[in-house]
Amino acid sequence: MGTFSKIAIVGTGAIGGYYGGKLMRAGTDVRFLAKSDLSALQSRGLTIELPDETFTLRPVQAYSAAAEIGPCDLVIVSLKATANNVLTEVIPPLLHERTVLLTLENGLGSDELLAERFGAERVVGGLCFICVNRTAPGVVWCMHPGSISLAEFGRPAGARLLELVALFNRAGVKAVAGDNLSELRWKKLVWNVPFNGLSIAAGGVTTDRIVGNPLLELEARALMREIATAAAVFGHQIPPEFIEKQVSSTKTMGAYKPSSLIDYLSKREVEVEAIWGEPLRRARDAGVEMPRLSLLYALLKQLTAIT
Amino acid sequence: MGTFSKIAIVGTGAIGGYYGGKLMRAGTDVRFLAKSDLSALQSRGLTIELPDETFTLRPVQAYSAAAEIGPCDLVIVSLKATANNVLTEVIPPLLHERTVLLTLENGLGSDELLAERFGAERVVGGLCFICVNRTAPGVVWCMHPGSISLAEFGRPAGARLLELVALFNRAGVKAVAGDNLSELRWKKLVWNVPFNGLSIAAGGVTTDRIVGNPLLELEARALMREIATAAAVFGHQIPPEFIEKQVSSTKTMGAYKPSSLIDYLSKREVEVEAIWGEPLRRARDAGVEMPRLSLLYALLKQLTAIT
Repeated sequence: MGTFSKIAIVGTGAIGGYYGGKLMRAGTDVRFLAKSDLSALQSRGLTIELPDETFTLRPVQAYSAAAEIGPCDLVIVSLKATANNVLTEVIPPLLHERTVLLTLENGLGSDELLAERFGAERVVGGLCFICVNRTAPGVVWCMHPGSISLAEFGRPAGARLLELVALFNRAGVKAVAGDNLSELRWKKLVWNVPFNGLSIAAGGVTTDRIVGNPLLELEARALMREIATAAAVFGHQIPPEFIEKQVSSTKTMGAYKPSSLIDYLSKREVEVEAIWGEPLRRARDAGVEMPRLSLLYALLKQLTAIT
Repeated sequence: MGTFSKIAIVGTGAIGGYYGGKLMRAGTDVRFLAKSDLSALQSRGLTIELPDETFTLRPVQAYSAAAEIGPCDLVIVSLKATANNVLTEVIPPLLHERTVLLTLENGLGSDELLAERFGAERVVGGLCFICVNRTAPGVVWCMHPGSISLAEFGRPAGARLLELVALFNRAGVKAVAGDNLSELRWKKLVWNVPFNGLSIAAGGVTTDRIVGNPLLELEARALMREIATAAAVFGHQIPPEFIEKQVSSTKTMGAYKPSSLIDYLSKREVEVEAIWGEPLRRARDAGVEMPRLSLLYALLKQLTAIT
């Protein structure tokens, strides 16, 4: 498919497995870098379960080291943010002069990290609005495929971004081009900060328990307003209607477990810095206090350290 | 012993058992109203364990109904704040014209409740700076006797308060007269709000884990400043040095379990309204926002409802 004919997936979990699998099924040369799922991918392939179909890709090109994959046109970074320390080692063997790095990681920080280490011009960010879980090694269950928003790091959308959008669309993934990556990330935090955070801090509860509890719903809204106030300092306008929509749509989601709650309950690392720590620090550096986020962050650090 | 010759203890738990026992041992006629500990008190008496001695009082006058006790000169209210609904029924049989009601309950609300129902002129408040647990029915373990601060409700100290102080002092309880009950209560909240609250919300941790975690210590201080800001609106000055002292003295306390944490871990009711809800509402009614307390209160309501 022209520009993006060879693709590496760095981090084959739910997100990497799902998008990599969709792209591979559409005919792209996709190489999966995997750790815990490596032998399952090599022996049984990659299975993707969707609401209306299940398909297995086999064989899949799964590797344990980036050097075995070599330079790619596109590298999709779908690690957990807590594993970013491996990027220094993993990315270089995958690069040629025009390799694009697309990070699908949660929260704030991965765009800047990739830009600093490997060049800002390579970096594109993606925000995944999807419900997907890895249910077993090499098996990904996607309850709701949703969509992916893509935007260049620090630049408006251009020809390259539109090609990326087309690549995903051809693979059956609804993709949308955005012009402001930072704004998209702050907008996603409006949901992730309260719901991922309160679901853990309120004792491990699903989102319906948050929007079904008047006090917690008020706190979720107040956290959202803190995010909007901080985002405004960075030039991003998040209107009250956007906050309303986050609350009302959450009320339709039922007993949903945010990804951080799943990590927490499974005693896996929670992306505390990317989702809560980094926004708090950026706002503080810009002179904005976020008292509720500050308390929530401190509680989550302690709660996730215990686990 | 003049004025306070017959005393009723309403709520014979750790606090009621300890002070009632000390007063009884000093020769005062003390009647204990008890529920779960009634038969133990009647059969085995009341045992008080102190760092330097253990003594058992037997027989003790323990009753299941206030009517059996009849009018007293002093009624010490040492219920948990969550049990205050019984006061309407329990107090009237204990009253004569000049009966004094001394509430030793935590947080805010019991002074006003007793004043509204039984007359403000009867009410005295006490703040217990003590480490005491009820370890078995009729057995109270006091690790640190500390002191008790007494103050009239809405009035400066007078002859009656000094008599009360003398009563406690004669019984070997260090008692101090204060002139401003409301200020004493807000000052006590400066410790109770952060440490009782964070010990639960941070996953059931002792206070050393709070002052030993830089992020949580900062949050504890920030909560204390919220309390001081609210208290100032009610005319009470709580200086920064007072906050410093709370933190530094907590650092010497080791792995201390605040009373609310003990309640929480024992799946007993936690005094969420008296300690967190009521200060938050009073501040809000006075136009003061307390964002961290607001979030902490909402989390505690949910966490203690689960238990």
